[in-house]
Parts: sequence; structure tokens; C-alpha cells
Amino acid sequence: MTKPLISLTAALAISISFASPLAAQDQPAGAPSPNEIVGGAEAEEWVAIPAEDLLVMTLAPASDGTEREVVIQLMSAPFSQGWVENIRTLARTGWYDDITVNRVQDNYVVQWGDLNYDNPEADGDPKLLPAGLQVMAESDYSVDGRILSQLTVSNLVAKAEFQPGEDWIAPEESELGDEYSDLVGFHRGWPVASTFSEYGAETWPIHCYGMVGVGRNYSPDTGSGAELYTVIGHAPRHLDRNIALVGRMVEGMEHLSSLPRGTGALGFYTEEEADKRTPILAVRMASDLPADERPNFEYLSSEGETFARYVAARANRRDPFFITPAGGADICNIPVPIRRAGE
Amino acid sequence: MTKPLISLTAALAISISFASPLAAQDQPAGAPSPNEIVGGAEAEEWVAIPAEDLLVMTLAPASDGTEREVVIQLMSAPFSQGWVENIRTLARTGWYDDITVNRVQDNYVVQWGDLNYDNPEADGDPKLLPAGLQVMAESDYSVDGRILSQLTVSNLVAKAEFQPGEDWIAPEESELGDEYSDLVGFHRGWPVASTFSEYGAETWPIHCYGMVGVGRNYSPDTGSGAELYTVIGHAPRHLDRNIALVGRMVEGMEHLSSLPRGTGALGFYTEEEADKRTPILAVRMASDLPADERPNFEYLSSEGETFARYVAARANRRDPFFITPAGGADICNIPVPIRRAGE
Repeated sequence: MTKPLISLTAALAISISFASPLAAQDQPAGAPSPNEIVGGAEAEEWVAIPAEDLLVMTLAPASDGTEREVVIQLMSAPFSQGWVENIRTLARTGWYDDITVNRVQDNYVVQWGDLNYDNPEADGDPKLLPAGLQVMAESDYSVDGRILSQLTVSNLVAKAEFQPGEDWIAPEESELGDEYSDLVGFHRGWPVASTFSEYGAETWPIHCYGMVGVGRNYSPDTGSGAELYTVIGHAPRHLDRNIALVGRMVEGMEHLSSLPRGTGALGFYTEEEADKRTPILAVRMASDLPADERPNFEYLSSEGETFARYVAARANRRDPFFITPAGGADICNIPVPIRRAGE
Repeated sequence: MTKPLISLTAALAISISFASPLAAQDQPAGAPSPNEIVGGAEAEEWVAIPAEDLLVMTLAPASDGTEREVVIQLMSAPFSQGWVENIRTLARTGWYDDITVNRVQDNYVVQWGDLNYDNPEADGDPKLLPAGLQVMAESDYSVDGRILSQLTVSNLVAKAEFQPGEDWIAPEESELGDEYSDLVGFHRGWPVASTFSEYGAETWPIHCYGMVGVGRNYSPDTGSGAELYTVIGHAPRHLDRNIALVGRMVEGMEHLSSLPRGTGALGFYTEEEADKRTPILAVRMASDLPADERPNFEYLSSEGETFARYVAARANRRDPFFITPAGGADICNIPVPIRRAGE
């Protein structure tokens, strides 16, 4: 047999998944890959994610019977905490149970919520929101007696008191650039961007692949957290500072990203394809689950030495597959390593 | 009924699909959206894509019987033309017929080829490549009598004679930046990047969502075009100048991006999930199809006035949903408008 011209298992031998390194026997000697660098991190560089920051979302099983569970990490302070607290309330009261995935737009978002909201063709009334939600609009429509505070569009950024270099880390300028801000980096494992002006810095989280945000209507509505979406394509950075980002996928993203695309406007499923709407059976706070069912995750500290080497390696791939190192990286091409704890 | 707090159909009312504008009655007055600008282009700003640059790939029907057809536009000169010509040869000789999709890695690529290539667990021998292919490696393994010319890694960029501003258009610097190059822009509707040095400019096509490239093994192998992939996640720009880009998806991308993810290393399907490998029934050059079956596509000229306004609008969204215009755009967030001709 002629020596094959293409290797099936080694072709495109680059992975951004930490679970799938290239088989060692196929690999010429060279600089360590980003994954190999992460694999060498000391145990103390991994930071546990609190159970009260994890949501476990159970989808209806797939048509072949496969169980589908998605784990979402909620955004850290100082970002979007009003919406994040609303989401905890919605999860704890069971509000998300029995809603559906209603929209799958290719290279954009998967979105889930209550199908009866603002839908003239809906069969039923919208689900009643639980008490205790913070209000999500500057306008005057809200549910009586449920207003605790205002979540306005001005809450979408952290202000001057949140300083690059003090409150968050920007890797070497030579490695990361950004056309959407003056500086990008990481805050407690989250990708963030800042602009600077005479009034000081403004900092916000970034719409990378797998980030989770709050669906809303036209401004000044900012959404309650009852309708959520995740990014399934190229980072839609024009949404930064326009929508509240409240978290990211840490496991099970493939159950959402591989859903059939909707053929209606904006990727919504039409009534004719109503059977494609995936039911969400339950959404629970991990901290509310019995200890033996509670998922444990940890992220690689974005302030440690290993993370800095990982960023440098992703910006300048010198492992064997590569001919020309890029000389830089988009921040959304530097996913923060996250793994199940104790594995 | 209480006024709903979230609009299902209007939430996240931004589309990068040209087929799905927001319903007009939901939309406050404001600046035109990028899609509205494209919709106003004059007929002469649309450029027909030649039938010899279109591949029609027919997948096996989905489990629910849905037919699945994918249309790929091949890359324009001066980029990757050796591989592109190989791909025409492979399509015309029927070589791609009855291969399979073997790899689906989330937020990365879908890859298809001959499962028997370099696969120790394969049942059969690799398919014999057709005569007339150009060689895909600088090394000495090749099929006797089939070497026409060398496709080397140095073919991955266009050299100094291909000049920004003369041979391709860079939109205003204030709107597009790039951390992977010195300048980005568009050449005949394709996203390209350049670096400059004392030796002149080097220019290459960009790995945006939906771009199609040539799977390869370790350098100096550059791949023949028999194994192809498309990008289904955030632009993996570190692959630029490392892999030959040969085209992009112009229709049917959703049939590939929504495939179930593989659980093996690098997203390859394991033997246990062999039934997830989607058969590719046929790949034909559009120019070889009967006239009444031939798809006709056109792209919005990247050198016209409408395209410039479209870029400016995408970089600074001022349509009603937006609160804070981004002030810039990543080139992969400026997809070149492509549509069926005559629609």
C-alpha cells in the first residue's frame, strides 16, 4: 500500500479541547502545545468554582435516548450581578422548568425561554415570574410589588473603580490586541475588555463562543434573565455593552450547538417545526443538589504562571503542526481552561 | 394579561443572516441595519459567481428524511489555486462520492474525507486518487507519474506583487483592526490579511466561520484537497498561513454545523459511534450540472459604495436595538453578503 498522503487521525492536529490531545506517537518533537502546558499546571493553580455559581440544565433526552445535561457557570462580580441574582431566583423557584429552546441561528445564538412570552400565536399565557426579581427596564412596565432595584443599561459595564492591572490582568500587549476596546485581559478567569477616557476605565465581559447572555427587547428594556442565549459562532462582539452577559458554558455545550437551526426569522423555529423545540426539563443551582449529584468544576487561574505560558503558546503556536506562528491572538481564541475537579 | 417583559420574536433582534430581517412592526425608528443597507444595493453591485467556482455536495438525507445539499464557492486567484484545481479534478472524477464526514469538533471544524486513509482500524484500502493531481508535499512520498507541480507551504501566501490598495481593498483603518496581521480587507469578496516587511507585502485568506480548508498531516505535507474541513466556531486564525484555504460555504452550512459532535480525540467519531458519520453521496462542479439544476449565486462587490456603508454599519451598529456602537469590527464579523441570483 502506498504511503497515504493524508492522515485521518493527525490531519488538522490542533485542538482547543483539553480532553483531546494528539496521539503522542504521531507527533514530531517540538515545543509543547497549549494543552500540554495546561496539563503541566500545579494543582494549586486550579481554582474551584463555587456551587452557587453553577447551574445544571437538563434537556429532554435526544431522539436516540442520549441524556443531555448542560452546566453553566454564572458571571463573577462586579459584572451583571443583578441579572445573575435574578437567574438564581428563577432557578430556585423552578421557573425555568418546562420552558423550551426556541431559537437556533447558525453562527450566532441558541436561545431558550417561555414560548408564550409576547408570542401572538401562543396557546397559553406567559408563566408568572416569581417574586423578588429585580426590574429589568428603565421604563414603567413591571410586575407590581416585585421591584427591588433597577437593572439599567448603565449596569452593563464596571466603572472607573475597576482598574486594569489592579483588578484584572492584561497579558503582554504584544500578544493580545483588540479592535473593540483599548485593552483586553482576564478577570478571575473571565475575558474582559476596557476603554479609557478622561473619566477613567470602563470594563465589560466579552461575547466569546459559549458565553451566556440575557435576551431582551429594545432598550431601555435590559431583560430579566428569564430568557437566555448562548453564542454558537464567531464572537458577536458588537453585542458587548449592549446585552448583559451572565455566564458561560462549562459542560454540555455540544447539546445546544448541534441543535437543528430554525428556519424562521432570526433562527426561531416556526410553528411548522414546533417539534424541533427542545424541552428544558429542569434548571437547578448546583448548590441545591444533593452532595453526591453536585458537579465540581475548577478553572486555571488567569493570574498564574502557567496561564501566562498558555496565552503565549496560543498566540505563537510552535508545536509541530505549525509552520508560521500567528504572532498574536484574539482573546476569544484563548478559552480559559475549565475541567471537572479531581480529574 | 400583563405586558410581557421579554419579546420572544424581538429579543436579540440582530441578525447576521441576510434572510431574516427583524419584523418591521416591532422596530423603533433608527439608522438602517447592515441588512437593510445590503437590501438597498443596486443590481449592478452584485457579482455573479462562475459555475466553475461552485461545488454542490449532496449529503445523505437526515434521519427525518430532510434532503441536505451544501454549496461551496472555491477560492479566487491568486490564492491556493493548486489545491483548488485538485479539488475540481477530484469532483469531476467522482472521487468524493461515498466518502464520509468523520470529524465534528465543537467550536472548531467539521471534516470529511476517505475513512480508510491512514486509519489502522479501517476495513478497506484508501481510495485511489485520480491522475492529474498536483503533489501536496515537499517530501518524497507521492504517487508515481502524477506530479505536475509542487504545492508547497510557500504557496500559502501571495507575495509582494499583490498589493493592498491596488489588488485588494482595505476599509478605513478606523473601522477594522487585526491582531493577526498589519492590515485586513477584502479581495473580490474574500477576507484577506497582509503583513509588510522590507521584502514587501505578504497576503493570505482568513479562517472565518464557514471557510473551507485542506486537511493535512505534519509539514511539509500540505494536503491534496481530498480531505476538507469547514470552520464551525470562532475564527481559528492561528491556522492562517498554515493550511490552504480553498473556499467557503455559500449555502447549506447548517447541515454541517449542526451535526453531532464526535467524542473521540479531536472530535473524530469513534468506532462505537460509526453510525454518526454522515455519508457524502456526491460532489459535483456546478458547471457540470444540467443548466436547470445549476445553482446561481452572486456576492455583493467588496469594492462598491454599498459594501463600504455595510462595513461601517457593522462596525458601528446604530439600528434601534443597540445602545453602544462597538466602534470597530473583526473582519470575521463582516461576512460578505452572498445570495441566490435573481432573488
